[in-house]
Amino acid sequence: MAVGPDTLPTLHPVAGFKIGIASAGIKKLGRRDIVVMEFPESASVAGVFTKNAFCAAPVHLAKANMATGSLRYLVTNTGNANAGTGEQGMADAKAVCAELAQRAGVSDTQVMPYSTGVIGEPLPVNKIVSALDAALADLKEDNWLDAAWGIMTTDTRAKAASEQIEVDGQIITITGISKGAGMIMPNMATMLGYVATDAEIDQVLLQSWMSAATERSFNRITVDGDTSTNDSCTLVATGASGVRIESDSAAATAFVEAFNRIMLQLAQLIVRDGEGATKFVEICVDSAETSKEALDVAYTIAHSPLVKTALFASDPNWGRILACVGRAGIENLDLNALQIYLGDVCIVEKGGRAASYTEEQGQAVMNEEDILIHVVLNRGSASETVWTTDLSKEYVSINADYRS
Amino acid sequence: MAVGPDTLPTLHPVAGFKIGIASAGIKKLGRRDIVVMEFPESASVAGVFTKNAFCAAPVHLAKANMATGSLRYLVTNTGNANAGTGEQGMADAKAVCAELAQRAGVSDTQVMPYSTGVIGEPLPVNKIVSALDAALADLKEDNWLDAAWGIMTTDTRAKAASEQIEVDGQIITITGISKGAGMIMPNMATMLGYVATDAEIDQVLLQSWMSAATERSFNRITVDGDTSTNDSCTLVATGASGVRIESDSAAATAFVEAFNRIMLQLAQLIVRDGEGATKFVEICVDSAETSKEALDVAYTIAHSPLVKTALFASDPNWGRILACVGRAGIENLDLNALQIYLGDVCIVEKGGRAASYTEEQGQAVMNEEDILIHVVLNRGSASETVWTTDLSKEYVSINADYRS
Repeated sequence: MAVGPDTLPTLHPVAGFKIGIASAGIKKLGRRDIVVMEFPESASVAGVFTKNAFCAAPVHLAKANMATGSLRYLVTNTGNANAGTGEQGMADAKAVCAELAQRAGVSDTQVMPYSTGVIGEPLPVNKIVSALDAALADLKEDNWLDAAWGIMTTDTRAKAASEQIEVDGQIITITGISKGAGMIMPNMATMLGYVATDAEIDQVLLQSWMSAATERSFNRITVDGDTSTNDSCTLVATGASGVRIESDSAAATAFVEAFNRIMLQLAQLIVRDGEGATKFVEICVDSAETSKEALDVAYTIAHSPLVKTALFASDPNWGRILACVGRAGIENLDLNALQIYLGDVCIVEKGGRAASYTEEQGQAVMNEEDILIHVVLNRGSASETVWTTDLSKEYVSINADYRS
Repeated sequence: MAVGPDTLPTLHPVAGFKIGIASAGIKKLGRRDIVVMEFPESASVAGVFTKNAFCAAPVHLAKANMATGSLRYLVTNTGNANAGTGEQGMADAKAVCAELAQRAGVSDTQVMPYSTGVIGEPLPVNKIVSALDAALADLKEDNWLDAAWGIMTTDTRAKAASEQIEVDGQIITITGISKGAGMIMPNMATMLGYVATDAEIDQVLLQSWMSAATERSFNRITVDGDTSTNDSCTLVATGASGVRIESDSAAATAFVEAFNRIMLQLAQLIVRDGEGATKFVEICVDSAETSKEALDVAYTIAHSPLVKTALFASDPNWGRILACVGRAGIENLDLNALQIYLGDVCIVEKGGRAASYTEEQGQAVMNEEDILIHVVLNRGSASETVWTTDLSKEYVSINADYRS
């Protein structure tokens, strides 16, 4: 199951950024499960990574290699997360990078590794290595769609976004892909994201934009509250367009707006493909005293199994939403001052069901696939939005049957 | 579904504590849905209540009346929570208390009201009032089992515990009942509990024991992380045995131990009857630096849909447990120092799967109905235990179909 139409925009190639896909047969014979990405040494690379203390070996190694500041390749395998694998896991991640580096004629630390799939099984290094030549031979700029398929695990759809914008009279491109369907939660997810642009941007600036965009996109989605061991999102600016973007310029504003849209699309596509999802739910909390307060209310609703099962049933069960707002831990909450809306329909005001509310109005909103829950706290000026799914029988089936 | 045998111990009557049950037909015609409890004015009453800011009208009123210190009756209805009902809800709760008080010849504030059931519907005061005479006529000490049935909502089993202990050569009795199956979470639940003893105990002492016992029982169980608007647990000491228990005495120690056992049994019975439960899961976190740290790890595991679906599948998916420990937010967690056990089987050590672990060992533990997840952090001396259920397709069905 997934929510909304399964369509992708034109995925514009990014000058200087090549992608090769190959099959290592890690979980299924013939599945294309290895993705190699190549870019020039002059490119800038920014990244964000899982905050899970048990983060996987490839995450440790990717962070360490990113710090060297001289990168050339990203290598991703699906089917095995190389997480919970101890010292052997780190040796295995290094071995994959070394083998790729040797074939490409670069140094080991110029490769960033990514793994996603089952936790706790040894990484099948030999299988991965055997597919590297084919992946390198496949490198080309027009390979984004195959890459979107190549990084999938329990995903039912490929996820990608792409834009071209005009900057100083020249066209620059931003294209990205993402994966993830379960174990999705703030502070990243079993989520991989890769975005590339042909603009030229200094690394420190690129990282600041990346971190800010992540905060408003991948760190605002949740399917089941679980943060994975392997999340990461990487942004590469190749500079191949020859268009340089400086801080605090009109070009910077245009770029950041487009980049934020790309990141939000990639994040929301993950929610739409959430495990067992039948609803795409936006939860907006307005006029809170602080951002944290708004997020506490939003996530309490987003993680409530009772709200999520009501969404699955298309049941306008406003009492469960009200109970979440009440238990979100907000100090001195004035129940009589707040309102709760389903879409545009006011369901709660003055401490109880809104006088104007009718079950038919609530039902009409709940019958939609895309649903907005809007809480107006009337305490301050902070506002936050998160996106989530419902909780269906299919979610339980997927996670009771799949060994992740 | 429920976990473990459906048996109850002998429920000893508590001298001075009478219970009457009647049918008001709130949700189903003929269902016995009104429970009145009566005790002498000399009794001491202690209580704990939901921390949900949207707490229901009867909770507000019960707290206010408890503060008067001169109670005679508890009145409970099921089928309607009188929550999210605004000013009318408070007027309705007061009306029920006033009608009971008038019939019993006491003042309105000597009655504590309790409601459980659907949120946001007006309380059917007339139906409740029409059943009060029958409930009062039914008052007797030997009515605990009927009362356990009378307070049920989505529960599939009656829940009760009872003990007699010898204090200073005399027998005293402690008997209690509880209800609740979903919306269960620390800081109480859609949980009602009533315990009575015929010991004589000062109110301040009684409240301190009640609060401490709740912390280790009802505040350590979680089914779905949702705290209800109506939780409460009430303890009445009638004094009718003539046995007075003073602070810091051998009698106090014996009483508190027995009372804590009763509270823990009543709480665990709720978990065993958790909505859709097929497993009863104890999560014990040892050698943490602080109690909060131990609880953070325990609840992260207990609330993880991925762990809960693996439990439903009897899948020894240790990677999901490891991922929870990693994302619990513990500062400077040394992954190499901790161990995780399933029952007695070590599944994680030295940052990955234990060398001695075999899938057969893990499977054998997971095949049981009662499962222990034991995390040894090796950081300090704090320890906490929580109890929870798995997450089954039946849970989703119940909550997608039932309007609570």
